[in-house]
Amino acid sequence: MTDFAATRAQFVLPEGVIYLDGNSLGPLPKAAADRVARTVRDEWGEMLITGWNRAGWMAQPSVLGDRIGAMLGAPAGSVVLGDTLSVKVYQALAAALQMRPDRKVILSDSGNFPSDLYMAQGLVAGLGKGHELRVVAPEEVADAIDEDVAALMITEVDYRTGRRHDMPALTAKAHAMGALAIWDLAHSAGAVPVDLTEGKADFACGCTYKFLNGGPGAPAFIYVAPEHLDRAQPALSGWLGHEAPFAFDPDYRPGRGIERMRVGTPSVLQMAALEAALDIWDGVEMASLRKAALALGDLFIAEMRARRPELRLATPEAHAMRGSQISFHHPQGYAVMQALIARGVIGDFRAPDILRFGITPLYTTEDDIRTAARTLSEILDQTLWDRPEYHKRAAVT
Amino acid sequence: MTDFAATRAQFVLPEGVIYLDGNSLGPLPKAAADRVARTVRDEWGEMLITGWNRAGWMAQPSVLGDRIGAMLGAPAGSVVLGDTLSVKVYQALAAALQMRPDRKVILSDSGNFPSDLYMAQGLVAGLGKGHELRVVAPEEVADAIDEDVAALMITEVDYRTGRRHDMPALTAKAHAMGALAIWDLAHSAGAVPVDLTEGKADFACGCTYKFLNGGPGAPAFIYVAPEHLDRAQPALSGWLGHEAPFAFDPDYRPGRGIERMRVGTPSVLQMAALEAALDIWDGVEMASLRKAALALGDLFIAEMRARRPELRLATPEAHAMRGSQISFHHPQGYAVMQALIARGVIGDFRAPDILRFGITPLYTTEDDIRTAARTLSEILDQTLWDRPEYHKRAAVT
Repeated sequence: MTDFAATRAQFVLPEGVIYLDGNSLGPLPKAAADRVARTVRDEWGEMLITGWNRAGWMAQPSVLGDRIGAMLGAPAGSVVLGDTLSVKVYQALAAALQMRPDRKVILSDSGNFPSDLYMAQGLVAGLGKGHELRVVAPEEVADAIDEDVAALMITEVDYRTGRRHDMPALTAKAHAMGALAIWDLAHSAGAVPVDLTEGKADFACGCTYKFLNGGPGAPAFIYVAPEHLDRAQPALSGWLGHEAPFAFDPDYRPGRGIERMRVGTPSVLQMAALEAALDIWDGVEMASLRKAALALGDLFIAEMRARRPELRLATPEAHAMRGSQISFHHPQGYAVMQALIARGVIGDFRAPDILRFGITPLYTTEDDIRTAARTLSEILDQTLWDRPEYHKRAAVT
Repeated sequence: MTDFAATRAQFVLPEGVIYLDGNSLGPLPKAAADRVARTVRDEWGEMLITGWNRAGWMAQPSVLGDRIGAMLGAPAGSVVLGDTLSVKVYQALAAALQMRPDRKVILSDSGNFPSDLYMAQGLVAGLGKGHELRVVAPEEVADAIDEDVAALMITEVDYRTGRRHDMPALTAKAHAMGALAIWDLAHSAGAVPVDLTEGKADFACGCTYKFLNGGPGAPAFIYVAPEHLDRAQPALSGWLGHEAPFAFDPDYRPGRGIERMRVGTPSVLQMAALEAALDIWDGVEMASLRKAALALGDLFIAEMRARRPELRLATPEAHAMRGSQISFHHPQGYAVMQALIARGVIGDFRAPDILRFGITPLYTTEDDIRTAARTLSEILDQTLWDRPEYHKRAAVT
């Protein structure tokens, strides 16, 4: 059993704040401040250029990639850090399309994060070869996989509703139809048990600043199934993905295995923060975490159902279909969330009408959930959102 | 006149080290350590998700982009930070090819940094439309610009020799032939006076961890000429380049102006370090810096010529053709550089035979240059590089 009081003690949690937005940006691990300061002063400051080797900066995308891979059922050498999630989605998708040259359809769903859809649209437009991004409702994905599909591109957990797809089943269907499966794990990594090997994903990617707590701007990761490693072309063929980056050859030759998915200089300060965040995960059993997250989610649902039965749940109740967030619909969702935040309960609003609360047992307690539910209920008793200042749309939430 | 003693005092310069590698990684600005610590503790730690607005993280790529733009003769709203230089080269090149759909040639030179060539090769292969990357010698670029060229893609200052191209002249030739000009300013920004407006560059990009001293993994920047801003397609069409990122529309619509070149979440900790680095530049006149850099470079050349007349200079002596580094050829260059570093003079080696020394008046003094020249001369007197341990190729230099 994981000791969640001990993990909670490892985070900075501001006084008076109940933080249910770790699915957008995880809080600061206490050790990260020192770790970053050490990288700045002792590595950059003292080692200067030699830090690339002496401090291990150059190897860090693979070293930390392997640590994240181990949390996701990915073998060593199949995950590497770098860039942002959108860029990694682009690389996975471009590689998949090249591996299915006779097919023209990218299949995704309307619950996918828009940036994934946008990157696909940009790739399709850039290629100009008649590819099509086909977007169906989340419930219709399985039936929509046919022999025209080159790549299935799905975010496992819906960023708005928290609905979770069945990765092994959809991947199996994709493979049966000759398609490749790309999984975006933005709301999965550190949130739900994932086994990329068992699930037979062809590609996966995710970000590290949500449930993994790597900090604002932490790098993304990409996974390529071992059987594809030597065939997948990186599309963004940067020097650090070259077989011999420091030979400065004029011609690109993809590096060995997952290294080829590297592009340019890694973000050293961000990786230092992420490393400290991953240390916390070393002591966490995913099964314990999942059990605790489901219990906290069930508690939130029960509390709101008792207090506000008219509030419409957006998240599936069935455990197997749920990620690690609880969302509700509310027509004045933006105003309600602003009022909540003003009272120290931080969740977020997602257009058009979603109140979203991340469930993160590493630092969220039952008391937090009870207080959040009580506060939300009180706000719904009032009509705060009739005030005009709550009607402005958030620039950023 | 810029007071270079005052700028030097703003850097951490380790005892006993003469640092002539600021063209690879600039040293730590003293203020950066505190600035990063504040971002970690007071912003990430205390503001959590609200830091995106309250601490200005979301706006920072444009705010700092404008500050860098101002150093490069670029108007406000034409430069934005993000990703790595390789990714920004890809975006510029993809946009340029789309703007010249009837042309198939990307023209570059063999002095370009390999990653730029690799990114072009990846783009050409991915497009599969018969584009060609044509690479000529640096001296042959002007004559090779013809009416088949869609885009000229050149790094202004050669990373090995320090040879500087004539940006206005080559750009004028490109325009006369109907081509677009993309300039990589990796070894220009903070190194030599650049005026993108006067030079009529169509696109430019660069990195911020070399002469600008933004730290390891600092973000890249991209410039798009104002007249192209509404036509240039970003290729990597991520959500933060969308016209309304937080509307979460299913369809991509490019954002206004340079904002469309943003892709994913910016690296907040890296930007904090860069901001502190840019503060130092506020007090620097580029004309003073250039004058001082040329004088230091001339001194290095003169010292070596007096001591070691057989050492072959790789950098053009003519000021107009020189960036801000001095390079020499030496058949045992790797071994010589290892010996220099062991004695506290840090430059770097670039295959096949280049000893490279960055000239950075912000913190490099005449005494530094004299000591470096004396030390290099002493090493060349010895035959240290006959030892086998110096014959291994650097993994990273």
